[in-house]
Amino acid sequence: MMFSSPENPTLRLPPGVKDFFFAEARQRRDLEQRLKDTLAAAGFDEIITPTLEYSDVFLLAGKTGNGRNSLDEKVYRFLDRDGNLLALRADFTAQIARIAASRFAGLPAPIRLFYSGKVFRAEPHHVGRSREKWQIGFEILGADGLAADAEAVISILAGLAALEIKHVRLAIGHIGYFNGIMAQAGITGETLHNLKYLVERKDAAGLAQAAQEFSLPAAVRTALTRLPNLHGGETILVEARALAQNDISQQAVARLEALLPLIQKHPHAGNVFFDLSEVEGWGYYTGIMLRAFAAGVGEEVGAGGRYDELISRFGANLPAVGFSFDLDLLVAAIQKKA
Amino acid sequence: MMFSSPENPTLRLPPGVKDFFFAEARQRRDLEQRLKDTLAAAGFDEIITPTLEYSDVFLLAGKTGNGRNSLDEKVYRFLDRDGNLLALRADFTAQIARIAASRFAGLPAPIRLFYSGKVFRAEPHHVGRSREKWQIGFEILGADGLAADAEAVISILAGLAALEIKHVRLAIGHIGYFNGIMAQAGITGETLHNLKYLVERKDAAGLAQAAQEFSLPAAVRTALTRLPNLHGGETILVEARALAQNDISQQAVARLEALLPLIQKHPHAGNVFFDLSEVEGWGYYTGIMLRAFAAGVGEEVGAGGRYDELISRFGANLPAVGFSFDLDLLVAAIQKKA
Repeated sequence: MMFSSPENPTLRLPPGVKDFFFAEARQRRDLEQRLKDTLAAAGFDEIITPTLEYSDVFLLAGKTGNGRNSLDEKVYRFLDRDGNLLALRADFTAQIARIAASRFAGLPAPIRLFYSGKVFRAEPHHVGRSREKWQIGFEILGADGLAADAEAVISILAGLAALEIKHVRLAIGHIGYFNGIMAQAGITGETLHNLKYLVERKDAAGLAQAAQEFSLPAAVRTALTRLPNLHGGETILVEARALAQNDISQQAVARLEALLPLIQKHPHAGNVFFDLSEVEGWGYYTGIMLRAFAAGVGEEVGAGGRYDELISRFGANLPAVGFSFDLDLLVAAIQKKA
Repeated sequence: MMFSSPENPTLRLPPGVKDFFFAEARQRRDLEQRLKDTLAAAGFDEIITPTLEYSDVFLLAGKTGNGRNSLDEKVYRFLDRDGNLLALRADFTAQIARIAASRFAGLPAPIRLFYSGKVFRAEPHHVGRSREKWQIGFEILGADGLAADAEAVISILAGLAALEIKHVRLAIGHIGYFNGIMAQAGITGETLHNLKYLVERKDAAGLAQAAQEFSLPAAVRTALTRLPNLHGGETILVEARALAQNDISQQAVARLEALLPLIQKHPHAGNVFFDLSEVEGWGYYTGIMLRAFAAGVGEEVGAGGRYDELISRFGANLPAVGFSFDLDLLVAAIQKKA
């Protein structure tokens, strides 16, 4: 521990943050530039949001979080000298929803935006997670159709290709599939959150046990316990249709079926797979769920999805889809590859 | 106040911070890139520091601040979940001093670094100042000579030229001149801080009154009251020598005299002037003081200087000189010009 001697406590950094210089800084800027250039070439415009926000913005965005993975819980907050509760940027999408509601409602849609910067998450020391995450992401605002979903997928594939990360996969789910099963069975509140958590963890045994405990109907029990394995190619959509015979789930599957022809000609479409157990997120997602994985990296290197109701919480009815890359995890992916 | 209706308090931003999108974001990134490219071409390497630090780093850097303009007072602090007092980056130079002391002490000097990012300052609402300031700056570490001072000046001129800001001037002072006068008169502590504050404000009348109040010797009184007007070309250095006949002040003037031939052939050397009343800063400056001004902008668009003793507070003896540009004020300068 040469840099944390008691003589020089000021040489220590808080847990979960890092310095980058020389080659490490150059690599990060190079990757950032490639992602930004890719997005700019595709017609996205940069947006630069502040680091300081009123705490309410993240509270509003996080209010449907599932408790175990709540955005609101991870926001760093402090009082300014005027007694206002400030927060550090915990999520770009929440900020962009605020800006979109106040400034973009009258503009021709879709509005394509990208951003690059840090989000801050209050993680306890022992968890070992980053407290500063460098995210580069994009949002497509004002478009609720399949074309925007497909554009999001293709933008992610283009970004990953620009980084030359070879062993990378993009999972596409749809929150409506899980939501339909819950609605069909009349499951809400804490029970829903508990089941969602088990789906997120791909815990089939835990789901079977919970289904029994909550006395769920046999059809719901079957669908839930199968959910962690509903990942793969087109064929899993057929199985998914058979498992959840309710309108909401069927519409979710139909949306994914319709998406396929719009993305399958992309040169990197082979990296895409469907995964109906992708239900994790900050709680504002309403449609497709997107998550990118790279070989050798335990966490997702990027995540996003459709959030058609978030901006309306700020006062303007703008459907939207977006995604953010985690720069430090992309670096980790590149280092694993080498 | 269309964006702060009581119905949507979440559309409001805290005072002193801003959103940038479309043309405003593009302009900022363009200017940032020009400054970064100029510095990279001159052999500077980027360093990326965290936004979160232990509060001690800024406390240590700010401890000789003059009370009225103390870095320590402007640091945003808050407790993390482990009970540690965290701070938001309030100064890049303090962070780079921390890193240099722990990581760079053995490297061949000089080490040339640049950075780009936000600093955060706890400004009360009514003051109207930015709480997030986007700074792009550089440091030359491990070189105490005139050559590094000249390189700093030339790097600033090159940066300003790259931005095509025409009506811009760079003031060069030397904190040793003021310090010598104080040492000669045996003035320390609060009295010194009060006099420094009056010099910063170019308040000749206030200085005359204070000199009388503190019963300062006639020579000191003359030097102090003349100080606010000791700005201009080479001739003011002659006057400065005559006014402060102590070793420390004479050495300061000699340093500026010796600097002149090293910078005067630069195509933009005409923008440089000497100003011995440049004494403002976070308290860690020990040599030349640098401050850039642009026509129509009330605050300096950049500031810096030599700080040979800051890094030793973190445990390594590395002299250094640095400067930071304020991106938002540079934008204001460009808009005034247009």
